[in-house]
Amino acid sequence: MRFASWYWGDRSYAGTVSADGREATPLAVRDPERGALELIERMVSGDGLPAPSGPRLPVSALTLRAPLPRPRRNLLCVGRNYRSHAAELASSVFRDSLPDKDAWPILFTKLPETVVGPHDTVLLPGAAVSEQIDYESELAVVIGRPGRNIPRSRAMDHVCGYTVVNDVSARDVQVRHQQWMLGKSFDTFCPMGPWIVTADELDGRDTRLRGWLLPRNGEPVLRQDGSTRDMIFDIPTLIETCSRGITLLPGDVIATGTPSGVGMGLSPPQWLQPGDAFRIEIDGIGAIENRFELA
Amino acid sequence: MRFASWYWGDRSYAGTVSADGREATPLAVRDPERGALELIERMVSGDGLPAPSGPRLPVSALTLRAPLPRPRRNLLCVGRNYRSHAAELASSVFRDSLPDKDAWPILFTKLPETVVGPHDTVLLPGAAVSEQIDYESELAVVIGRPGRNIPRSRAMDHVCGYTVVNDVSARDVQVRHQQWMLGKSFDTFCPMGPWIVTADELDGRDTRLRGWLLPRNGEPVLRQDGSTRDMIFDIPTLIETCSRGITLLPGDVIATGTPSGVGMGLSPPQWLQPGDAFRIEIDGIGAIENRFELA
Repeated sequence: MRFASWYWGDRSYAGTVSADGREATPLAVRDPERGALELIERMVSGDGLPAPSGPRLPVSALTLRAPLPRPRRNLLCVGRNYRSHAAELASSVFRDSLPDKDAWPILFTKLPETVVGPHDTVLLPGAAVSEQIDYESELAVVIGRPGRNIPRSRAMDHVCGYTVVNDVSARDVQVRHQQWMLGKSFDTFCPMGPWIVTADELDGRDTRLRGWLLPRNGEPVLRQDGSTRDMIFDIPTLIETCSRGITLLPGDVIATGTPSGVGMGLSPPQWLQPGDAFRIEIDGIGAIENRFELA
Repeated sequence: MRFASWYWGDRSYAGTVSADGREATPLAVRDPERGALELIERMVSGDGLPAPSGPRLPVSALTLRAPLPRPRRNLLCVGRNYRSHAAELASSVFRDSLPDKDAWPILFTKLPETVVGPHDTVLLPGAAVSEQIDYESELAVVIGRPGRNIPRSRAMDHVCGYTVVNDVSARDVQVRHQQWMLGKSFDTFCPMGPWIVTADELDGRDTRLRGWLLPRNGEPVLRQDGSTRDMIFDIPTLIETCSRGITLLPGDVIATGTPSGVGMGLSPPQWLQPGDAFRIEIDGIGAIENRFELA
């Protein structure tokens, strides 16, 4: 199934989207502002989905929101988790974060208010705050069944599904504050969508993700093209790691890192400019595409 | 004023506590599970506080909760922000995070589910997860009026008040994951309270904070004794920093760092053991005291 959240007219809805991504069915949730969270909670509790609350509608007539428009706590995010991306960092200011044989995953967070919809505008905070805004195409795992100290062997039982995020990053801000949260948390810095595909329909451990820069002037350029098989720490390991001493909750989001091809990895580095857009597509889920404009 | 949250019988309440800390008055909030958040929002909107919803009660008859029992996003936390603490880190594994003349504040987060009450038990996650649990006595700033790109000169207008937190930290986990969030976010790792003192009654920029270890066997030992005047980055600078490109919201918590005297800074380092307790007192606010037990 595909869980989505949308505006139609001036009201918000949550519901399901058909397998071809063309039709949306609103469901009778208590609070549509929570997006797909209530659907996830009902799946976990075994209650099943609520009844339809209205007729099916063409997705083209809706404004899709992020499937989780406002997560109830910060998104968990993984740093340098693809071998190809780790390699391109070797000549960057982040070279000291490269993994060695004893490495553990790097986990930081993005504030919930970073989340915007799959076609919303991302606001560049201005040169006084950052001149090095970069994209990161990422598969995000959405947690279903809660748990603490979850072993790798049972981790996949806690996955509700998957969605696409752009872990937009201010590289200069990441560096100057040492800890990465601020440089990852500017308002609107986490486009998400277009929906959550449930884990019975997609194995996030083996899918392809691609990211295109759509420059203000010029043709689209494929910047990132990777497979989630290339993760250094796989999804079960990430869930085991995040749940050590910490209770994971339904609707928690774990952004699993990005493959090579970020702007920081180019020589010389290239940063997002006002009017540029970035498109991320993950096989088995769909695509998000967001324009960048000055705040 | 003092905003608090408490259990009385099997119900939860939010309200005010008298200046001497002895009497609590429940107020007619819509959702007492949100603790003082509704009171903060009403102060910000100019609506004033809701009417009392019951008789005054002796605080000794209540079970105080954290004034914000479940913040709506991660707590913002500042690393190595006291000159004395920075000095004691010079011989630790964190020596590379020492400030130089161009330094910016270090900001990381704790998950909202770390928050427990001022006298609640903190759960040690067990030796398989961490053997280096440490305390950090901290003044926490609670944001009132929301804002983005707040200049230092107007930052204090956005402070609703102050409370006490223990930024409990797993040092080995901080180190192995490089980013500090996981080692700061184990369930129950943020005791908070006993209440929020509003900014008209306390200037958080000039107050004393002390922390005592209460060992399972033995007499209390004063481990931390500092003044918030010793901060490297003062409260207005922290608010300016956290709001660069990020909208601060009513009820946001900024834990402002700890003075010297943490267990990691001792030679040899000393870690919290099951049965130990830690007491933090901040002049003008009050005290929290929490026992540590194996989960």
